[in-house]
Amino acid sequence: MPRYRVTLEYDGTPFVGWQRQTNGPSVQASLEAALPKFTGEAPEVTAAGRTDAGVHAAGQVIHFDLARDFPPAKIADALNWHLRPDPIAALESALAAPDFHARLSATRREYRYRISTRRAPPVLERNRVWHVGRRLDVAAMQAAAALLVGHHDFTTFRASECQAKSPLKTLDRLDVACAGEEVVIEAAARSFLHHQVRNIVGTLRLVGEAKWSPGDVATALAARDRSAGGPTAPPEGLCLMAVGYDAATG
Amino acid sequence: MPRYRVTLEYDGTPFVGWQRQTNGPSVQASLEAALPKFTGEAPEVTAAGRTDAGVHAAGQVIHFDLARDFPPAKIADALNWHLRPDPIAALESALAAPDFHARLSATRREYRYRISTRRAPPVLERNRVWHVGRRLDVAAMQAAAALLVGHHDFTTFRASECQAKSPLKTLDRLDVACAGEEVVIEAAARSFLHHQVRNIVGTLRLVGEAKWSPGDVATALAARDRSAGGPTAPPEGLCLMAVGYDAATG
Repeated sequence: MPRYRVTLEYDGTPFVGWQRQTNGPSVQASLEAALPKFTGEAPEVTAAGRTDAGVHAAGQVIHFDLARDFPPAKIADALNWHLRPDPIAALESALAAPDFHARLSATRREYRYRISTRRAPPVLERNRVWHVGRRLDVAAMQAAAALLVGHHDFTTFRASECQAKSPLKTLDRLDVACAGEEVVIEAAARSFLHHQVRNIVGTLRLVGEAKWSPGDVATALAARDRSAGGPTAPPEGLCLMAVGYDAATG
Repeated sequence: MPRYRVTLEYDGTPFVGWQRQTNGPSVQASLEAALPKFTGEAPEVTAAGRTDAGVHAAGQVIHFDLARDFPPAKIADALNWHLRPDPIAALESALAAPDFHARLSATRREYRYRISTRRAPPVLERNRVWHVGRRLDVAAMQAAAALLVGHHDFTTFRASECQAKSPLKTLDRLDVACAGEEVVIEAAARSFLHHQVRNIVGTLRLVGEAKWSPGDVATALAARDRSAGGPTAPPEGLCLMAVGYDAATG
């Protein structure tokens, strides 16, 4: 039973999230409705990252199995045809190793969070950025971010509904950069806790506004208590940029 | 009677264009509906560039007169409040000289046209790029673009409904650049003919696909005949980036 791997871009705005749910349209349901139209089969689809409602992807990875062989490179085109008009695009498709698993084989996830600091509301970037509407102290945010990189107990930045067994994670990268009227935060790790990036961003905003010092972030992290952290940043600024795999499985 | 100047960003997708029309919503009508709500007056609004349906702006400039003085810097905030949810944002507002005219005083207009060359349809950039879906020969497009820069009779690239008195224009800049999976074309001139940028882009695409040589573009220009030019590129890739004024009036 051949296994296929597809890289996806999607606009998370109209979806209740990656995962199929009864309360609205999901990316997973769109894909599982499109696949039977050209394969004649109804495979279940598994994604590397179960993005929340409103969160975007530029490099989500999925896998699914088909009983029959299908030309791997043609799956992306067929999906793009049958997914219309849903805002989901298949960027590439390929045959995967039989033991490849989009989520379990992933060894690196990269997220980008965009904050708009200009006063006027975003229009061309509506639903793509968090409109904070004021200048942020990027140097202070960078100092705070540096304190979060590494292996830590991230309970302070973990959603209460998070299903991970352990709050211990290794944050490999947390870069804060100024890009015109935006502050762009990039995070990379093997895996993340639920809402980890958005909770970190909501806290870094407090530092950018000088309501918190970088040291306050270290104190919050050490508290291992969600109520010690800052608020959760909204979903629209977040995008899953890429998923990495080891050469053996990827 | 004080005159005010406002810089605008807008998403042209839902509009029939800048200009008030009976067949649908226009940017001008949205502004002229918002202004009375906080000024108590109903001024007519004049724009630097009368963008077509679907064309965006990141730096459109408008002017209007009010009988009463209004704090100039507060106009942008008030507009942003009262324009909601229309995708129009006022980026800045200021008092203008009494003889300032957004359109007639403008000495430079800058447009950007984005072409997506990747195979998959755009999703995060939907309605912001022209999806051509194949690689283009950027070097050939650059060679062709160089032949169009300067003072020429641009009849070949002029829409039949163009109201300009003369087809003679000076194209100051026409840059073609590769940016990831996009080709970005930037054009600057004192003023443009109707559809001039989109007709040039549609022709440059033919060069990028090797259907035309750069020399064919020179031949088409010399023909001074719209039917000798390439097709009109669609509006969604076009954005009015900036309008320039001389120091005396700007």
